[in-house]
Amino acid sequence: MTERSGVTRRDFLRAAAGVGAGMALTKPALAGFSSQASASGATGLKVAPLKTVRTAFIGVGARGSGHVEQMMTLDGIDVVAICDNHEPSLASAVKRVAAKGRKEPAAYGKGDEDYRRMLERDDIDIVIIATPWELHARMCAHAMKAGKHAFTEVPAAVTLDECWELVDTAERTQKHCMMMENCCYGREELMALNMCRLGALGELLHGEAAYIHDLRGQMNEVAHGTGSWRTPHYIKRNGNLYPTHGLGPVAQYMGINRGDRFDYLSSVASPALGRARYAKQRFPPDHKWNKVARWNCGDINTTIIRTALGRTIMVQWDETSPRPYSRLNLIQGTRGTFAGYPNRLVIEGETKNAHEWTEGGDLKPFFEKYDHPLWKKMGELATSGGGHGGMDWLMLWRMVYGLRNGEPLDQDVYDAASWSAVGPLSEKSIAKRSTSVDVPDFTRGRWKTTAPLGIIS
Amino acid sequence: MTERSGVTRRDFLRAAAGVGAGMALTKPALAGFSSQASASGATGLKVAPLKTVRTAFIGVGARGSGHVEQMMTLDGIDVVAICDNHEPSLASAVKRVAAKGRKEPAAYGKGDEDYRRMLERDDIDIVIIATPWELHARMCAHAMKAGKHAFTEVPAAVTLDECWELVDTAERTQKHCMMMENCCYGREELMALNMCRLGALGELLHGEAAYIHDLRGQMNEVAHGTGSWRTPHYIKRNGNLYPTHGLGPVAQYMGINRGDRFDYLSSVASPALGRARYAKQRFPPDHKWNKVARWNCGDINTTIIRTALGRTIMVQWDETSPRPYSRLNLIQGTRGTFAGYPNRLVIEGETKNAHEWTEGGDLKPFFEKYDHPLWKKMGELATSGGGHGGMDWLMLWRMVYGLRNGEPLDQDVYDAASWSAVGPLSEKSIAKRSTSVDVPDFTRGRWKTTAPLGIIS
Repeated sequence: MTERSGVTRRDFLRAAAGVGAGMALTKPALAGFSSQASASGATGLKVAPLKTVRTAFIGVGARGSGHVEQMMTLDGIDVVAICDNHEPSLASAVKRVAAKGRKEPAAYGKGDEDYRRMLERDDIDIVIIATPWELHARMCAHAMKAGKHAFTEVPAAVTLDECWELVDTAERTQKHCMMMENCCYGREELMALNMCRLGALGELLHGEAAYIHDLRGQMNEVAHGTGSWRTPHYIKRNGNLYPTHGLGPVAQYMGINRGDRFDYLSSVASPALGRARYAKQRFPPDHKWNKVARWNCGDINTTIIRTALGRTIMVQWDETSPRPYSRLNLIQGTRGTFAGYPNRLVIEGETKNAHEWTEGGDLKPFFEKYDHPLWKKMGELATSGGGHGGMDWLMLWRMVYGLRNGEPLDQDVYDAASWSAVGPLSEKSIAKRSTSVDVPDFTRGRWKTTAPLGIIS
Repeated sequence: MTERSGVTRRDFLRAAAGVGAGMALTKPALAGFSSQASASGATGLKVAPLKTVRTAFIGVGARGSGHVEQMMTLDGIDVVAICDNHEPSLASAVKRVAAKGRKEPAAYGKGDEDYRRMLERDDIDIVIIATPWELHARMCAHAMKAGKHAFTEVPAAVTLDECWELVDTAERTQKHCMMMENCCYGREELMALNMCRLGALGELLHGEAAYIHDLRGQMNEVAHGTGSWRTPHYIKRNGNLYPTHGLGPVAQYMGINRGDRFDYLSSVASPALGRARYAKQRFPPDHKWNKVARWNCGDINTTIIRTALGRTIMVQWDETSPRPYSRLNLIQGTRGTFAGYPNRLVIEGETKNAHEWTEGGDLKPFFEKYDHPLWKKMGELATSGGGHGGMDWLMLWRMVYGLRNGEPLDQDVYDAASWSAVGPLSEKSIAKRSTSVDVPDFTRGRWKTTAPLGIIS
């Protein structure tokens, strides 16, 4: 906070006035994130350490089956039960567990509500949910109410009511509710987080996040799989429906819900042409995708967010256009900027000059200097553990680490709610000619007194 | 327009219903832009050909003196008079003209209002204005009212009233009022324009524009020069104050004011920290920049625009941060995307694949295929003519070409007004928590029946 000046400095100090105590890191965490003082609500929630993390899964399709596989590589976890309404997926996942010489998990596959029966068991500590978007929030809430910690794929919720339901339930039950935003554990994201905590970029001003990923191919999965439930969202809704892969890391850089918070946002959507075009190219005229009367969701969404401290974030989403993959991953401060896709860095007085990006091989010394302690310690294991370059494995490792040590998790229910809320809030803004909409303060004011994820120096 | 489908197709056809006649190009223009049918108002304005373009200049500082120099390289122009309130600049420019063996131009330097006396002359056809931003609109209006065509540096106006004054005056006087957006004449911009007109990117969806240029060094010019008048804008205003270098080309790609128009926009600004930080680092404590009570203008501005056809544009502005230069220059369609900084292209079925950018040397065949006819014809001359890689020279050449042939100019008063209006409109949006603000239809409905800048095939 050395460079902030003028009126904004005063604004910041006012907003951050209560942060001091929380920022004093009382105890070094093993792997580089700060430990946070336990607080009221569900901020920095700590629960009694679990010797063994007895794990159940809901949804073991393309994504969930990977979680089962990777969880089994970690010490101190049992796979107790698995639920899926798709019989082949369920059978396959159960078999995978047994194939590792583990006790065969109990199988729950009697329809869409059988997860409720699974949740009645008293030998489950956590539930990992990888089902269609629209089921995440209710399954999380049911899990917490049944005394389990809830871990869900992204987004955690698709409506504002669902966001609040998650917050209310986590606060009432004092259970973890973590949205498993794996991209927070990428090497670049962790490095950028470290740079922000060290002040290497100066005072933070602006971030850019995206999920630009040509996923039109999912439309081929009509009977089962992603296309069967995800594609209909593009028909019914118009917004930034899948914001968290890019936004989660940027929110952590800025300490969102931990010293700052999303204040308001505005959103625009382009014409919705790509899905109809793809359907016409790839499917027969009488195919269900060619019978869609109106694709509602703009091919590319651009949302701008302003935070309580006045910082700005640009979030884009496009799963429909022939564009190379990007999460943008840009974080800009008064002294420098780090950007992704491809990785680029400029730091005044540190990189070669302020008018040229340092990139490619020239970034090596900066990775050496700024790699996050967590990555320095665990990066090699994570990379061999796999899953999107190691980020999946590292996320699961951090979850299990936190649970077994009774430490707060890196992402809490307020993160799940506020990062996911960009979906429904952007829909609201778009429906009203991009009028700005306020982002609810899901922390109920606790963002002012919660420490950011820190770095042990 | 081959790929548009669904509801948006119907929307487009409705909006474009009157365009047909205008799109039929009646006469090939020499250098690749379409000739447009003359119309009411000031759209596609044609005036009688000028054998010699008798030119006067207001403002011959860093920018204007370059225009004098480059204009003298063109056939069929006379430098009649020069006005500047800064004696050394005026004397130097007058001397430059005489040094070329030309008749010494009349000099006007008796204070800030002496340009009015110059405008009383009856031997001036056009006035080229390169003065501080806040003087552009009134000087253009005075020039037109005095019977001269007005050409101004960017932005053409800093308030909405000024935008309307330009439009009203151009319509009433039937004089050209062109904002000299030189970036519309860059090779990449012209190529992207050509690709859009040829439909190479499919139906257009989204564009991105920026002026990211670390210009903090201007603050060293305190007594005279850019810093003396430009820096105070960062103190007084908060918006996207200099939007046109990136936005002008994107507006041409999309046919803004020629088949589409800006409908509404929302804007966010980051904290304003960089100018105070720079002042503290570079100037003594009692320097005027260190006595500024509040720098009002956010270091980086992000504005989102939606067009009448539902397309979206993201416009950024940052002259304050240590970031490498960029105008972004991204144009995305259903079939492909071109982006700048560095140049990247993806076209489904044409570049190597849709998941990877084609860039660097691999772009060569695409430049060969898509270079704009104007660049193919004039690029070599332009490059040796100079000024930002040839764009300045080419712009002046096109202006003189249009004037000498009685052809419409490539940028008209509606472009000047609507591109510049993003400045004051973004200020308005920021002041109201990013609420969206409507962009006035400066064309008074004529955008529906005006042909886009075309390509002669």
